Amino acid sequence: MGAGAWGTALAKVLADAGNSVRLWARRPELADEINRTHHNAGYLDGELPTTIRATSDHVEALDGACTVLLAVPAQTLRANLIGWKDSIDSGATLVSLAKGIELGSLMRMSQVIVAVTGFDPAQVAVVTGPNLASEIAQGQPAATVVACSDSGRAVTIQRALATGYFRPYTNSDVIGAEVGGACKNVIALACGMAAGSGLGENTAAAIITRGLAEIMRLGIALGAKPATLAGLAGIGDLVATCMSPHSRNRSFGERLGRGGTMQAALAATGGHVAEGVTSCESVLALASAYDVEMPLTEAVHRVCHRALSVGDAVALLLGRTTKPE
Amino acid sequence: MGAGAWGTALAKVLADAGNSVRLWARRPELADEINRTHHNAGYLDGELPTTIRATSDHVEALDGACTVLLAVPAQTLRANLIGWKDSIDSGATLVSLAKGIELGSLMRMSQVIVAVTGFDPAQVAVVTGPNLASEIAQGQPAATVVACSDSGRAVTIQRALATGYFRPYTNSDVIGAEVGGACKNVIALACGMAAGSGLGENTAAAIITRGLAEIMRLGIALGAKPATLAGLAGIGDLVATCMSPHSRNRSFGERLGRGGTMQAALAATGGHVAEGVTSCESVLALASAYDVEMPLTEAVHRVCHRALSVGDAVALLLGRTTKPE
Repeated sequence: MGAGAWGTALAKVLADAGNSVRLWARRPELADEINRTHHNAGYLDGELPTTIRATSDHVEALDGACTVLLAVPAQTLRANLIGWKDSIDSGATLVSLAKGIELGSLMRMSQVIVAVTGFDPAQVAVVTGPNLASEIAQGQPAATVVACSDSGRAVTIQRALATGYFRPYTNSDVIGAEVGGACKNVIALACGMAAGSGLGENTAAAIITRGLAEIMRLGIALGAKPATLAGLAGIGDLVATCMSPHSRNRSFGERLGRGGTMQAALAATGGHVAEGVTSCESVLALASAYDVEMPLTEAVHRVCHRALSVGDAVALLLGRTTKPE
Repeated sequence: MGAGAWGTALAKVLADAGNSVRLWARRPELADEINRTHHNAGYLDGELPTTIRATSDHVEALDGACTVLLAVPAQTLRANLIGWKDSIDSGATLVSLAKGIELGSLMRMSQVIVAVTGFDPAQVAVVTGPNLASEIAQGQPAATVVACSDSGRAVTIQRALATGYFRPYTNSDVIGAEVGGACKNVIALACGMAAGSGLGENTAAAIITRGLAEIMRLGIALGAKPATLAGLAGIGDLVATCMSPHSRNRSFGERLGRGGTMQAALAATGGHVAEGVTSCESVLALASAYDVEMPLTEAVHRVCHRALSVGDAVALLLGRTTKPE
């Protein structure tokens, strides 16, 4: 449900693994294009398997589906699901692909799904990990996490996604899987700011490591297992997002690090705000509600929303008193 | 004790932090150059503090020193220490900066130090983390770990190293600090091989994450704390080494990934074997002694020492049966 880059890439993985796949696109003309050309050129390079059937009719897309992958942006998931829920089979597994914390409610995506559909939480799974859509569409080797409290459903999805190039690992820790994905873009902004200021690999590695530490603190407070965040859903996704030269969050941070203003950075991206700029608000609010200290997220928030300069943010972080790791 | 890039960079940090520093260089002409020019041009760019006094006389270097930093290569530490031990003050703290497992004995560096000197293990500390020497010499912000079972000694070293650009964190887990440093170069070789084969960020992130998982398995078997390896000494150092375009291990792996033979890769580096090529032998032997599975390290070992092709190594790793993370 959602024919952006990530929804389309996972539709390809599912089809390559031999599943029958319907792909819902919001715009009828995009569904037509996919069915006619077997390409989704606006979002992803490369040819799609001809077995994928695209439609803009959500009733047709959901009819009889045993597994429903939700691939719309985090802040639009609730509104979309409200329109879809009556068409979803009551025994289906709902798989969240969205990464974020809902503004206002401060809910994780799986919580939004349970709240809207009334489904048992054991029916809700999360797929997350270091998975840049463009590389998966090229068939490059990648590993991912399938998190679900019901191990039977987790293994079913694992098998449905396993191909020669895509390697899914199961995990029962849904909270950990979601926290990693929701926080990583904020840390990627911080990495970009450091790189834009001319700082090198030591600083980047320290930001990634201390970023992981604060993500772990938040995760543990919410009930996540530390091992999940030390794995693909945490450090793996964080490293891929912070390292990739194609990451929008990293690039946005770099513009700020080179001395650009938020206005200039926004203008350079055609008004598209990087996801971390939005999520640092909800992540910080969640951390505050659980009394968790997240100094890097707070510094990014002050740069993006309180006009703190990147130089002052770095000085602030280094000036913290020395202590045990 | 050792005026290579890392020994010299830490001498600068110590001097910048206000300590009285003597720097031992094996070659008298290098000690003279440092005293005369305040540069160590062969190893590190930039000017050194004029308060650093270099000498090639180990008795002079060690005389009355309360803290002795050992900055010689891992495989030469034992032979050097045997020559130095009678000149070291019996109450001194010995700080290991070498990263590796001794071939043959399979000892960590702190074990070698205790075995040679007969000192109490509480007198032995380890400094490790994402610390590329060239960036530290430029005064770029970096974080590091000071590990010692004696927390008083750890805090003393932490204070001695704390400057505006260098931020040390204490840790009581010496084993964890050493395991991370000893294993990271092998994983950096694997990252290089993948990059040289044309694989992207997803693969790199998966290698780093699964590499961390196998380092953690080994560490836990040896008595390390998982939190240490989830921190600067583990994931931090691993990320910096795997990401840096200047990493010799990554570059060596890239040559192999592009289809070069070991002979060609060695020729391209003037016969200098990358550290991971040596340490995959001792790390794998240690893992085998503790019955720990390290599939990435084993794949690197087979490529470097058993003529396996990089392509076959990748296929082998992806072909493993799917399982929980």
